[in-house]
Amino acid sequence: MVGRGRSKDELFLGIDLGGTKIAAGVVDRGGRILARQYRQTEASEGPQAVLRCLIDATTQLLAADGIDLSRVSAIGVAAPGPIDARRGVVTAPPNLPGWHDVPLGRMIQEEFSLPTYLENDANAAALAEHRFGAGRGVDHMIYVTASTGIGGGFILDGRLYRGATGAAAEVGHMTILPHGPRCGCGNRGCLEALASGTAIAREARERVARGVPTLIAELAEGDLDRITAQMVAQAAEQGDAEAREIIETAMIYLGVGMANLVNVLNPQVLVIGGGLTKMGPRLFDPVRRAVDRQAFPATASAVEIKRAELGEEVGLLGAAAVAMAATE
Amino acid sequence: MVGRGRSKDELFLGIDLGGTKIAAGVVDRGGRILARQYRQTEASEGPQAVLRCLIDATTQLLAADGIDLSRVSAIGVAAPGPIDARRGVVTAPPNLPGWHDVPLGRMIQEEFSLPTYLENDANAAALAEHRFGAGRGVDHMIYVTASTGIGGGFILDGRLYRGATGAAAEVGHMTILPHGPRCGCGNRGCLEALASGTAIAREARERVARGVPTLIAELAEGDLDRITAQMVAQAAEQGDAEAREIIETAMIYLGVGMANLVNVLNPQVLVIGGGLTKMGPRLFDPVRRAVDRQAFPATASAVEIKRAELGEEVGLLGAAAVAMAATE
Repeated sequence: MVGRGRSKDELFLGIDLGGTKIAAGVVDRGGRILARQYRQTEASEGPQAVLRCLIDATTQLLAADGIDLSRVSAIGVAAPGPIDARRGVVTAPPNLPGWHDVPLGRMIQEEFSLPTYLENDANAAALAEHRFGAGRGVDHMIYVTASTGIGGGFILDGRLYRGATGAAAEVGHMTILPHGPRCGCGNRGCLEALASGTAIAREARERVARGVPTLIAELAEGDLDRITAQMVAQAAEQGDAEAREIIETAMIYLGVGMANLVNVLNPQVLVIGGGLTKMGPRLFDPVRRAVDRQAFPATASAVEIKRAELGEEVGLLGAAAVAMAATE
Repeated sequence: MVGRGRSKDELFLGIDLGGTKIAAGVVDRGGRILARQYRQTEASEGPQAVLRCLIDATTQLLAADGIDLSRVSAIGVAAPGPIDARRGVVTAPPNLPGWHDVPLGRMIQEEFSLPTYLENDANAAALAEHRFGAGRGVDHMIYVTASTGIGGGFILDGRLYRGATGAAAEVGHMTILPHGPRCGCGNRGCLEALASGTAIAREARERVARGVPTLIAELAEGDLDRITAQMVAQAAEQGDAEAREIIETAMIYLGVGMANLVNVLNPQVLVIGGGLTKMGPRLFDPVRRAVDRQAFPATASAVEIKRAELGEEVGLLGAAAVAMAATE
């Protein structure tokens, strides 16, 4: 499907379907968000209920800001992977339990009679950081989101790289430590099992359960289930040695993973986003050191390592960027 | 530079400059080698001597087969990396000691007055396997050569992927085992330090030196320096338990590396070439198992794992393929 021209005034509808939150917004080609609406994702109520909620949010969005649907060129939808971008189908996302082969793209397209493009959320975020954020103007960019999980998206030779079945950039499931801790995917020693927020919280819980003295136990008021990566980061900030060690170890593994990606893809920019980047130098310093140590000198010096710039808006801008990229 | 049309009759000159051998050949677009010449690489005599030898081989090649230079559209040169493809410069290849920033592309271009394109040998081999070998007709192909070292080249979205500085696909220097054995590059636990022919021979030498009983010691007639990966493979074939264990361990790590690449790049075909593939199922079975276990099901089932098809001719065909790809 082809867009309706390519002016600065062109508008795009972005819909970011997350595991807990739906964001819908109207975005122009410059990345300005002209209007937005948020909803809770009632994932357990099934695709039809979520679709209704999503349509409702979009309708209100247009109404509240007096935006005529005729001004919108296309719709981009970002959804948790894995998805089949070509068919516009959400296949079996772990974050949307019970969803299976849902033709979300077609359903939205039929509702609004506009060309609709579906992409997984990490690829959408990569497109947004490339277009509006930390990767502006470069041809080769690796985007990694380090949060509860670890995901990624690649811009190679100026375009989103999807691979054979749209599943490229599964950076969280590179094996970094053979025989390492068990990952949610069933394997051992995946990057996600070593360096994600989930991994950091798990390691902290194990230490607290063993009775290791640490501020983390106090912050969680002794309740193992309340321990989060954020709490570990907070304890580290306050000088807690255990918390610092947990984070340092996790970030060494993150560095190994990032250096491997840099060696393999030789990018100009490595953009890291996601909740863990709030740790600032505790994340970026070890990653930079690992890249400088592990990658070849010319490759290491060619890559800039940057924090993602779009923050909370990356979901909405990513969804809109999917539509923009598809209609160029 | 643009080629002179694109007919079946078009001829290309391929020059493969290896650390020990120079191959020059005339190749048509179908991948038929019409003529070829070989020389020893006297790398220690410096770039000028090698250039003279290479020019001599090429001149004789054309003369012996009565091929007029005017029928040749372009010259492709494959050389050990790292090279700077854009400037046609061999920068500092470990296999050509003493070479430093040699403008080999320009030197050959001036000699023959034909457009000349330089590429690193692994990328050239990837181009050849994609065009004439195991990767024909696919858009996303990973090529890995497992030999003394481990190198690679990627065809992504139908084209050779070079990265920001032409150094992409350094697959041998992904860290597979943090704190693992020291690699020639200075780091620890690189794929090349765990799964290359050099790594296999090193592990065998260490075991023989420790006095572990193994057929390898007999095959090498007690001389540690004579131990090669080929010898270890031979001992394994004859049922030697130590040799089998060395190879099995190395191939488990090769599998980890290949699975990581598959997860990251989601290719249709993973082509493995190089001397180690002579081991057949001892290499391919563990790689297949690792990919099936570590990659996501849809990604694993999308990728065919194949042995490279061009054998000894991959160097020459690769060099010619560089010229073909550059003039399309």
